Amino acid sequence: MMAVSYSFCPRYPRVSSISSGRHPWDTQVKKNRRLVFASIQKPANDLCLQSKVQTLLGNVKWDDKGLAVAIAQNVDTGSILMQGFVNQDAILRTISSRKATFYSRSRAMLWTKGETSQNFINIHDIFLDCDRDSIIYLGKPDGPTCHTGSETCYYTSVFDLKEQQQVEGNRLALTTLYSLESTISQRKAETLAEQTGKPSWTKRLLLDNHLLCSKIREEANELCQTLEENEDKSRAASEMADVLYHAMVLLALKDVKMEDVLEVLRQRFSQSGLEEKRSRMSQG
Amino acid sequence: MMAVSYSFCPRYPRVSSISSGRHPWDTQVKKNRRLVFASIQKPANDLCLQSKVQTLLGNVKWDDKGLAVAIAQNVDTGSILMQGFVNQDAILRTISSRKATFYSRSRAMLWTKGETSQNFINIHDIFLDCDRDSIIYLGKPDGPTCHTGSETCYYTSVFDLKEQQQVEGNRLALTTLYSLESTISQRKAETLAEQTGKPSWTKRLLLDNHLLCSKIREEANELCQTLEENEDKSRAASEMADVLYHAMVLLALKDVKMEDVLEVLRQRFSQSGLEEKRSRMSQG
Repeated sequence: MMAVSYSFCPRYPRVSSISSGRHPWDTQVKKNRRLVFASIQKPANDLCLQSKVQTLLGNVKWDDKGLAVAIAQNVDTGSILMQGFVNQDAILRTISSRKATFYSRSRAMLWTKGETSQNFINIHDIFLDCDRDSIIYLGKPDGPTCHTGSETCYYTSVFDLKEQQQVEGNRLALTTLYSLESTISQRKAETLAEQTGKPSWTKRLLLDNHLLCSKIREEANELCQTLEENEDKSRAASEMADVLYHAMVLLALKDVKMEDVLEVLRQRFSQSGLEEKRSRMSQG
Repeated sequence: MMAVSYSFCPRYPRVSSISSGRHPWDTQVKKNRRLVFASIQKPANDLCLQSKVQTLLGNVKWDDKGLAVAIAQNVDTGSILMQGFVNQDAILRTISSRKATFYSRSRAMLWTKGETSQNFINIHDIFLDCDRDSIIYLGKPDGPTCHTGSETCYYTSVFDLKEQQQVEGNRLALTTLYSLESTISQRKAETLAEQTGKPSWTKRLLLDNHLLCSKIREEANELCQTLEENEDKSRAASEMADVLYHAMVLLALKDVKMEDVLEVLRQRFSQSGLEEKRSRMSQG
């Protein structure tokens, strides 16, 4: 879990939570929430935090230039947004501002991602690797991270190289779920553009709400049957894949991103939403 | 999409695909599959590949030590497995072997992750960032990546630091979906350990297959209704979150990981599985 525990640090400033969304789970905040969505003003003045930071900085193995690698990762999708370097001051500023901050080797100065574009990366957690020389900034970006306007800085596949030509192309480094999402989105664009030829299965689903919904209900039912009829693990994985895929076609029709769904899940669980719901159900 | 296009390079060796799984989509391989699951022996002899690699290496901005940062990321889950450095030879070896290979600064030599543990990271794609000095190795790990036996090298949260103490703890840097998976898994362990007190909603679902399956069917139905009754986007995201969460509780009961599900999806889509299915359906 992405627990951010301040329990041993009572004077640590309370962080504000994002309370967007219409679902009751989204707006109720429990004291023991496990994630924070925050910008904290001037917590560096807090002695307890300072002590923590001292401990942290003492644990990082800085290179000969006093730097370590920092990788910014989207807390919801897992996509690697950018990679930079950090020195002690960059980490201090990141912790105090909750905005991912780096050290620019070319400009020899600190810079906070978003200070120009306003596309900050809001920090949820920071992880050190086993060697203590590499850091993950786990955060939620306010907008595209790359200065080119791309969602992430990684959009050039080595395998798209063409002989004797410069690296070109604009294909984000997507992991499986988002790769599937991108394919469905492409099929959707194609269904709008042309109707010739035999449509793919995805296109047929996109064009036929009745077919799509009957498939979603059918696949959900088949997933349940793997439990009810004690089918094997591979069958459950396969049926879940069916549920996910068909549900994602529906999301494409509704213009909803998986990232939006994950944000809902994060907000619910960060607020012990399920316990809230249980509580409401018990009362009702 | 994670397309690996060799179309302009006809002599590039064909790669083998993993053909596991019981689903017909899993075992059928189409020529134009978009992902590779391969180890290629000696492709460096291929002139076309050499030419590509030359282009690649000419495009990387090496630091003053001839190195660039390389981040290994799980192609299915998006988790950051480890981070190392690469020189030209490390990238060459990675491309030729399809196993993530790095340059060890301390030992001043190349090393392939897994050469000792056999936990290789099988490369699916390689991405350069906009500055051309940072690389993502997008791959599938054969087992835990960290030398400690941890799934990834990032298991130390800065926010878990205790005052005046060393950084300790073993909490993986998990993004939302896997954080939720971890919570459900924890609830499952708790239901096995004790039955006292009022169970959480997740525990109730874990203990009552009938309740769980009725919730999965109900939530799938409500997701469909967002399309059928033209409900708003936030409602669709919320219902999809419900479907995902309840389905993941079922997966926990079946001991199936989301990573297994994503692997099924990747294999289907890499083999144009949906088109296969459509074709079969048309025939049937």
